[in-house]
This record gives sequence, structure tokens and C-alpha cells, in this order.
Amino acid sequence: MDTAVKYIFELPIKVRDYEVDAEGIVNNANYLHYFEHTRHEFCEQAGLTFREMHERGLDPVVRCITVRYIRPLGLGSSMVSKLALKRRGPVFEFIQDIYTPEGDAVAKAVVEIASFRNGRVSRGDELAEAFKDYLN
Amino acid sequence: MDTAVKYIFELPIKVRDYEVDAEGIVNNANYLHYFEHTRHEFCEQAGLTFREMHERGLDPVVRCITVRYIRPLGLGSSMVSKLALKRRGPVFEFIQDIYTPEGDAVAKAVVEIASFRNGRVSRGDELAEAFKDYLN
Amino acid sequence: MDTAVKYIFELPIKVRDYEVDAEGIVNNANYLHYFEHTRHEFCEQAGLTFREMHERGLDPVVRCITVRYIRPLGLGSSMVSKLALKRRGPVFEFIQDIYTPEGDAVAKAVVEIASFRNGRVSRGDELAEAFKDYLN
Amino acid sequence: MDTAVKYIFELPIKVRDYEVDAEGIVNNANYLHYFEHTRHEFCEQAGLTFREMHERGLDPVVRCITVRYIRPLGLGSSMVSKLALKRRGPVFEFIQDIYTPEGDAVAKAVVEIASFRNGRVSRGDELAEAFKDYLN
Repeated sequence: MDTAVKYIFELPIKVRDYEVDAEGIVNNANYLHYFEHTRHEFCEQAGLTFREMHERGLDPVVRCITVRYIRPLGLGSSMVSKLALKRRGPVFEFIQDIYTPEGDAVAKAVVEIASFRNGRVSRGDELAEAFKDYLN
Repeated sequence: MDTAVKYIFELPIKVRDYEVDAEGIVNNANYLHYFEHTRHEFCEQAGLTFREMHERGLDPVVRCITVRYIRPLGLGSSMVSKLALKRRGPVFEFIQDIYTPEGDAVAKAVVEIASFRNGRVSRGDELAEAFKDYLN
Repeated sequence: MDTAVKYIFELPIKVRDYEVDAEGIVNNANYLHYFEHTRHEFCEQAGLTFREMHERGLDPVVRCITVRYIRPLGLGSSMVSKLALKRRGPVFEFIQDIYTPEGDAVAKAVVEIASFRNGRVSRGDELAEAFKDYLN
Repeated sequence: MDTAVKYIFELPIKVRDYEVDAEGIVNNANYLHYFEHTRHEFCEQAGLTFREMHERGLDPVVRCITVRYIRPLGLGSSMVSKLALKRRGPVFEFIQDIYTPEGDAVAKAVVEIASFRNGRVSRGDELAEAFKDYLN
């Protein structure tokens, strides 16, 4: 089923050793950092940096996130963070999966983003315009 | 419906201002830190610290987490982090909800924990023993 | 010599276990988080929260920091974070020392803060006014 | 004077937007993460990963750190993190400077590392052996 996901962006990331906790594995919270960084790098590639959005009063906000942790990463590990994107009205749904360089699944997440304009939920049309080549 | 959750532990937490990102709200990843810290403080109250577990070769690991972000926290905000617990065979399911001091919902999560013993999934009997007064 | 430091504020802090890295000790960067959180709690006690400062266009910025790490903290450790304050013209010098609850030194730091007003270095008079009962 | 520093390693790093705090600049503590990550990447290039050291019971520990913050980094900023190295008996002194891609100084640090072997301070001979081509 996962093979059916059509990723539109991928980013190689290397674990920074401070992200590894006393159990010797990357702490669960750091995956949300990896996911966010991947989204922002994707946005930049799509021509709309997070900085520009923020300066224009447009703030994407995480509304819901589900993560399955499949295989731990440790000191010095490398990963590839992949992303697919759907729009559901004002909500953008990012499918975000992390793999080892060999292609084994590490973590799989769905992240729902709503966009706020000057503090109020927006219809997301600016984001949809920026993402139009990537939405399926 | 939420009123039906019987919380067994709660922890007041104050936002540390470095947890607030450029959008002026606590970054999504930090909630996983709040949830983990709450679980560990609960374990300590139940008589089994994370340190002791780790020294005995027993490492609880997050298998799945779902978070709904309802209301943002910002600079200087206070919160109350509440917890309920269920066992499903080897998996412990923590219901973890964060509220403002006034009782408004901030974030609601379900965190599934499996416990590992010397690197292998365990049946979780040590944890169940420690948590026996709290499981419903 | 350290006994000569007249601390004007202290804050008990408990290690959150995610702050402990693969070496089993609190990662060096987290001490800067403890120091910052302590300064902000001190400011709040002095009647001037970081949020209020920020909303008034007044942003304290770290200019220089020196930390000596004396004794590591680990899983579940408790600490007491203490603070003294001097003004040197536009620069506020925070002496920030962390101890175990038993009084053994954990880390000792000097943190120099300059305050910015709407993006420019200010003379620091607002901060000096807020801190006037604490400056020696 | 800084031009006299003979850097032996450099690493391009891009700010991850969650590292930027409510003031719109990278939070002071994150620089210690950048410095540590740079040291570990350097060690890997020198043929001795942090993971291998740790598995052999050899743990480098930060003893003292001094950072001067010169120019802030913000959302989407890029940097180049550079490193030079000296040995002083059992202590390794890392000169760690961060620049913008255009060569403007962002932060300058000196980080003293002592190495521990199975929990006790070591003479640092294993590190010196690994670093022998880089020590001046």
C-alpha cells in the first residue's frame, strides 16, 4: 500500500547526535522536527519560503499529527525524508515518511496543516496556488 | 465525551519561552516533550523511575502517537498535563490531554508505548505490575 | 570566592529525561535553556515578563556566554538554578550558577545581555528600571 | 586576528525554522547544537565517529564553552561552521566559528573537551592519535 504513495519531494537528513536520548535512539519528538524541516524545504522548492509566508502574515499551523515509529535511528544514522501532499478544502494533508538510505521504513506520519492569515483560519488559497504543481 | 476520561495523574507545566517559535506559539514538537515528561513523572509517582527502568534493561519506546492541536500556547503560558492509562496486551496506551489552567483543551494525544527488555519487545509485565493501581 | 556571590533569585528545576543524551548526561546545550528560563522567571518576578518586553518592542539578546561544566546531571536529577545581576552601561551581566539540591556546583556561567528596542541596541534603561531593586 | 585561525574543517548548515524563537532569531542554545554537530562530523572525517568512541567507552565531555554572538541568524538562514583544534595535555580546545555564506562572522566560540574513559578522565591519547593529522 505504501508503495502506492507518490512522493513529490525528498530530503536526506543525518541524525545530529544530540537528538539521541539516553535509550540510544532518536527521541520521539525529534521526528516532528524532521517532518517540519522537510515541509519547509519543500515549500522553499515550491517557491514559497516559510519566512516569506510569515512576513506576509500567512502562518501554516499543525492541526493534527499521527506518527508510527517503525525502526529506531541512532548515533550517526542517515535517513531520507519523503513527502506527498493532498488538499482537503482549507486543510493540507502531508504524508511524511522517513526511510533508511536502504529503503527500510523508519517512521510514517500524516500531518494536517491549516493556514492562518493574520491570526484567522484562511481558505488556504495562497498555499494551494504555490503548491498547484504538486497537488494530486 | 472527554469528561468521561478518568485521568489518574496531572502535572502543571509552564512554557519555557525558548519553546515558542517564530510564529509566536509553542512549536508542535515540544508537545511530545511535555507528554514524555508527564509520563516519566507519572512513572516516578507509581514508584518506577525511567532511570531505574533503564538501569534494569527495560526501555519503554513510543510506537505510535496521535496529537490534535486545539488551542496554541505562547510566551509565558501555563498548562496542566493530564494522563489516563490502558493496557492492551504488551502495549500501554496513554491518553494525554493538555489544558489551560482554566480548563480549556490545548492538545489531546494518544501515545502507544511498547516496552523493550534488553533490546527485545517484552510482554510488559513489569510495567503492568508497577501500574497495577492505575490501570482501568 | 563563589560564596561571595549574592544571588538574588533561585529556581528549582528538574531534568526532563529527553534532555539527557546518549552519554547518559544532560546535553551541554540544555544548560543554556535552563539559564534562559531562569532569567525569564526572574524577570517575571521583577514585574516585567519576556512577553511584555517583546510586545513593547524590547528584546533582550545574549551577546556573550561562558559556561563551566563541573558536575554532570543525569536522568531524573534535580537542580537549583541561581542568579545574580550587574549592570555595565547598556549590558546586563547575569551570573548564573546551577547546584545540586545538596549544594554541589553543577555549572557556572556568565551571560551578557544587551537589550534591543525595535531592532537597535538600547541603553537598557527600561531593564535597569525594572531591575532596580536587584542591581548591586 | 581571526584571519590567523587555520580552520581544518568546515560544514555548511542551514537553519531549521524551529530553531528560531519568538524574537525571530536562532535561539542562543542552538549554537551549541551546531558546534557539537560540527565536532562530530569532523571526528567522523578524522575516522573516529562519536558512536564508535561511545561504544569503546570513550566519551568526550564539554568542560568549558565560551560563545560570542555577533550577528543573528533567522528563518531560512544558511551558515558555514568552521573548526580549528589544539591540544593542551588532556584537554582538546576547539576553536569554532560560524560565518554567513558571504563570510561575515555570526558567532565565535572556544570549546574545551576532556575525554572520559569508562567514567574517568583520560589522558586523551586515543583522541590525539585520531586527530594527529589535524593538531597544530
